[in-house]
Amino acid sequence: MMQACGIVAEYNPFHRGHQYQLKQARQQSAADCLIVVMSGNFVQRGEPAIVDKWQRAQLALQFGADLVIELPFASACQPADLFAQGALQILSMLQCTTLAFGTEDVTFDYQKFGQQMLGQVQHQQFTIDYQKTYATQWNDFLTAVIGRRVTAPNQLLGLSYALANAQLTQPLKLIPIQRQGAAHDQTEVATAATFASASAIRQLLLDQQPAGAVQPLLPYPQARLQPPYINVEQLWPFLHFRLNTTWPSELADIYQMSEGLEYRFNEQNRESTSWSDFLQRVKSKRYTYARLRRLALYTTLNITNQDLKQAQSWGPQLRVLGFNQIGQAYLHQQRPQLPTPLITKVDAKTGATNGPLGLQVRVDRFYQQLSGREQNFKRRVIITNKEFN
Amino acid sequence: MMQACGIVAEYNPFHRGHQYQLKQARQQSAADCLIVVMSGNFVQRGEPAIVDKWQRAQLALQFGADLVIELPFASACQPADLFAQGALQILSMLQCTTLAFGTEDVTFDYQKFGQQMLGQVQHQQFTIDYQKTYATQWNDFLTAVIGRRVTAPNQLLGLSYALANAQLTQPLKLIPIQRQGAAHDQTEVATAATFASASAIRQLLLDQQPAGAVQPLLPYPQARLQPPYINVEQLWPFLHFRLNTTWPSELADIYQMSEGLEYRFNEQNRESTSWSDFLQRVKSKRYTYARLRRLALYTTLNITNQDLKQAQSWGPQLRVLGFNQIGQAYLHQQRPQLPTPLITKVDAKTGATNGPLGLQVRVDRFYQQLSGREQNFKRRVIITNKEFN
Repeated sequence: MMQACGIVAEYNPFHRGHQYQLKQARQQSAADCLIVVMSGNFVQRGEPAIVDKWQRAQLALQFGADLVIELPFASACQPADLFAQGALQILSMLQCTTLAFGTEDVTFDYQKFGQQMLGQVQHQQFTIDYQKTYATQWNDFLTAVIGRRVTAPNQLLGLSYALANAQLTQPLKLIPIQRQGAAHDQTEVATAATFASASAIRQLLLDQQPAGAVQPLLPYPQARLQPPYINVEQLWPFLHFRLNTTWPSELADIYQMSEGLEYRFNEQNRESTSWSDFLQRVKSKRYTYARLRRLALYTTLNITNQDLKQAQSWGPQLRVLGFNQIGQAYLHQQRPQLPTPLITKVDAKTGATNGPLGLQVRVDRFYQQLSGREQNFKRRVIITNKEFN
Repeated sequence: MMQACGIVAEYNPFHRGHQYQLKQARQQSAADCLIVVMSGNFVQRGEPAIVDKWQRAQLALQFGADLVIELPFASACQPADLFAQGALQILSMLQCTTLAFGTEDVTFDYQKFGQQMLGQVQHQQFTIDYQKTYATQWNDFLTAVIGRRVTAPNQLLGLSYALANAQLTQPLKLIPIQRQGAAHDQTEVATAATFASASAIRQLLLDQQPAGAVQPLLPYPQARLQPPYINVEQLWPFLHFRLNTTWPSELADIYQMSEGLEYRFNEQNRESTSWSDFLQRVKSKRYTYARLRRLALYTTLNITNQDLKQAQSWGPQLRVLGFNQIGQAYLHQQRPQLPTPLITKVDAKTGATNGPLGLQVRVDRFYQQLSGREQNFKRRVIITNKEFN
């Protein structure tokens, strides 16, 4: 029986740090197959990915992944706990036995903390306190469980994986991997560095820096990232348009639009001149930028509470973006036991408005409007013969 | 007592033919005051006006009008009969005694036909036959009343005025004015002509023709039409976006979206590359281009059945865009008898979401997004001292 190790990723864009992580995951897990669950065209921070899911999946397959599955929009653009839950559910359905993830501190006992957090969650419900942001409450909760404040972004994300993992019937073995070089959110790149954060690389690409600045950070020729590079600012005319043409009362249906935020959105829209200007204007102590960014994205994409419920009622979908021979063999082995069919192409049935990928197809239509490249109906699963290097 | 003559117009853009018509209206009506009811930023054919309502009102005041009132969106972007009804209601509220309008044939007895049409409408309800377009049914009705087929566009519009006028408690006296030069829809301009249709002039402006081509057609320096000139094709990215991010079932709420057109819109959107391409794709025998153009505009602007009902429940509003001393004196005379208050500025109350100009403000926000110029809250009524020339 082949064994699989799972990885949760965005690869926005894929860089040397990701390549290193895949290599380490293979070594440390000793798994036969590396499965990546990757955000699609919209990522966790509430923005479009700089290049589309197909380009990102292709690079992942070339540099270490054996199988890439798309994390559905309904999980991908969510706070860390729901993001982690969605991803772990998919890796669990695929019977991964280990989960590898990058972190600032590999000495942290994620497995133990996961169990402890689960105990706390089960015995003492997370009471919603509207005086504090969700992020603050989550951090308070972690501090109470762990006994000290955690601030490093990948440690926090690791704890989300640990809790989501503990919630599974058959939890995976956790493999923390030491992150190299840059922190997750670092936007400055030391010129000599070959490990930089994805956000720093995005900034360089969007600022149209010469190839010399970006190339050392990528394990492939920069030209492999095919323009147009999608910038969240390109969403502004559409968010502005949406807010210009929608009554605040209608906005109230948008997922996560609560406590009168629809009026704040409506009012602040009028004078705003860009996506970032708008976010600054709607910002208050009550809401983190992370939450507002996602809410602005939901508003742009017209994602309602009903849409999310509908997508969730379908449950996690196994949308295959690509594989190599190892991934293919693994899928062949698992297929009989899969709780839901593998989706290798989007057709009139799976992609229908009320089909399992209906919402995914809808959000991707907008990405397609920006990128000019078809994202679903005419796309075939990437099949690659290349071994990882 | 001052007497007023009404005119219904779009001035998209204002040209020599309009100047001639205003002059004739003043002479033939012998009225003290010429009142123009003018479409706002979106016009009857379901498109944005080439320049905004303020620029158009200013030119009308300079070249013959004494008072310009805005025809609300809920009447302006409608088939000829509803367009005419909305305009005539406003002119009637302002106690105009005559209505002047351009036509291809001034020998036509509009007053008599108006009465005959009213008799027919009252005694034999217009039965909706879904095998025929609304336009066909309307033309059949006119043919039956008048005894011969009418095809000239301004004659048809004149008949709509005539019917709307006959429906008033105190009908106005109709003054048909012979149109000069071009037909309403003619898009080719003879180089020597000084009378050209507004659509031909729009085409020249949008094609960025040299000033030499357009200038002779305008009674003012061409530079008075301040760019950006708004083209309906600029709406395409937004209609495409709307259709990309909306379920067909939600589209069904759009005003006039009937008989499954929402699915046709949804499907044809995918491959369409422009506004005109989209219209060609959705076109069928069942719907005229005029109807589809307006429906595409309603969809772009997210105008629902509920929005129209709400706007109509407020009734026609007297939104003043500008006047000269004559117009001011006339308003002063009429003010005590007006059934609804004059609106000379849009404020938090009149412009509120649920206020009398709520829908107007909402549609104008989008125009503003295209033109870059505030359309309501900070705009003052145009007051001009100039006499007409």
